[in-house]
Amino acid sequence: MALETRIESAIAKAIAIGQTNCSDVGCVAPPRLASALEYAVTPGGARIRPTILLSVAMACGDDKPVLSDTAAAALELIHCASLVHDDLPAFDDADMRRGKPTIHIAYNEPLAVLCGDSLIVLAFDILARAADEDPRRALALIRSLAARTGMPQGICAGQGWESEESVNLAAYHRAKTGALFIAATQMGAIAAGQEPEPWTELGARIGEAFQVADDLRDALCDAETLGKPAGQDVVHERPSAVTEMGVEGAIQHLRDILSGAIASIPSCPGEAQLAEMVRRTAQRMVPAAPADKAGA
Amino acid sequence: MALETRIESAIAKAIAIGQTNCSDVGCVAPPRLASALEYAVTPGGARIRPTILLSVAMACGDDKPVLSDTAAAALELIHCASLVHDDLPAFDDADMRRGKPTIHIAYNEPLAVLCGDSLIVLAFDILARAADEDPRRALALIRSLAARTGMPQGICAGQGWESEESVNLAAYHRAKTGALFIAATQMGAIAAGQEPEPWTELGARIGEAFQVADDLRDALCDAETLGKPAGQDVVHERPSAVTEMGVEGAIQHLRDILSGAIASIPSCPGEAQLAEMVRRTAQRMVPAAPADKAGA
Repeated sequence: MALETRIESAIAKAIAIGQTNCSDVGCVAPPRLASALEYAVTPGGARIRPTILLSVAMACGDDKPVLSDTAAAALELIHCASLVHDDLPAFDDADMRRGKPTIHIAYNEPLAVLCGDSLIVLAFDILARAADEDPRRALALIRSLAARTGMPQGICAGQGWESEESVNLAAYHRAKTGALFIAATQMGAIAAGQEPEPWTELGARIGEAFQVADDLRDALCDAETLGKPAGQDVVHERPSAVTEMGVEGAIQHLRDILSGAIASIPSCPGEAQLAEMVRRTAQRMVPAAPADKAGA
Repeated sequence: MALETRIESAIAKAIAIGQTNCSDVGCVAPPRLASALEYAVTPGGARIRPTILLSVAMACGDDKPVLSDTAAAALELIHCASLVHDDLPAFDDADMRRGKPTIHIAYNEPLAVLCGDSLIVLAFDILARAADEDPRRALALIRSLAARTGMPQGICAGQGWESEESVNLAAYHRAKTGALFIAATQMGAIAAGQEPEPWTELGARIGEAFQVADDLRDALCDAETLGKPAGQDVVHERPSAVTEMGVEGAIQHLRDILSGAIASIPSCPGEAQLAEMVRRTAQRMVPAAPADKAGA
């Protein structure tokens, strides 16, 4: 089955659990919040994180595909939850995301908070439900995902740095952007029965590359291409690879990071295909003009 | 060890994990968010939910006390997370909680959202970490907590009903107030190696009683006693047992519910002590004047 099909199917299955799977007699879910859960995860963006996760799982043999698919869905639910909360008025105050109104605009602000909360819970719920496949791996998946989502080193910590007067830039970037890429490579390995640690560096480097690519997109693309406002790094005075080293410098930096990422791939049966996936991911990351240069 | 000591110690241990337990080299947590985690869980309120959880665990033999303590802490983290998010301007817009400024006032709104998110993640993280004690029980604890926290029947669903034009009142109350009491009795049983289902009714009835007691407190107490604004049910036009059946009627209703709760306790070694705990909990629930009447 194609990766996209596996990912979309696993996400749809997870959302259905969040919408309707009640154990109590006569249980019904609040319809608008149930609808918001689905709205928040569709249409998918590039699904980069679950694609990396499944690619790593396949490189490691993917002997428990149901567990890999569940891990991929759980990771994407967390990513979508973070987008819903990041778009809130108290954060980016974004009206549009992936070309449609954000949840607090399309529904309301309470439902946006609750939608994010529910997606976070659902991510851990589906991993625990998949434990029949392999309890030890399911628990390791929960721990890896929790570590890269919450405090002190997950995406919550990353966002938390934006409320500090003095920012530890390395910790900030690693937590804010890198964390879910580290979760992607670690969880892919865990789902296929491997230890997570050797896969940390690959995730961290892909995360770094993604941050630089995001900076490039923010600087080079217009709002229509992005599906969200452009030029936000300058508006919000956020640190950016483009303001720091210019467009050409940022592209060279991206190329170096990706070479490092590929070099860091642990020895495994599917090493060559995985390297190819990292190259393809890089091409999807970068906007039209610099894509050729960055795909090296 | 006294229940209070076990609970406070387990919560403090959990918060320390959220503040400092990094696997990455040179990892540091954002200090204000780290501080907010602790602020959100201290000083404790009555800790009613973890007290019920440990009481049920002890009634069932409490053969894995570390697992029981972790379950109690995880449940209280979720409860505190829900308070932090419920106090946000988009929900109750509350400035005070437990006699001190709410998180979005004491810190800021982004940190309040992130603090709630981080506490939710931490709850599942500590349960997964406790899996060495008994992987099967840890996974069952995660599933029970997830079911009573998220969608479609947890506290998120309960809050979600407040954004519906047409409300299913039974589903609303059971999810909003009952869910974490059901989690308390179920998780206490699971931690001690028992099946959760026979314990669902006790939790649901305690939850109902708590809702009625909360309605009584809101109607009878002043803001100083409550540590938060009083008379909010009338202000927000929320359904209330007091507006529905008057103060005397609500007290009688509370007495009936508690009798039913005690009658529902499954046969177990500590049945008598547990019944006594439910009576004591009832007395702590109700404000000074009606406490004697309700403690029957």
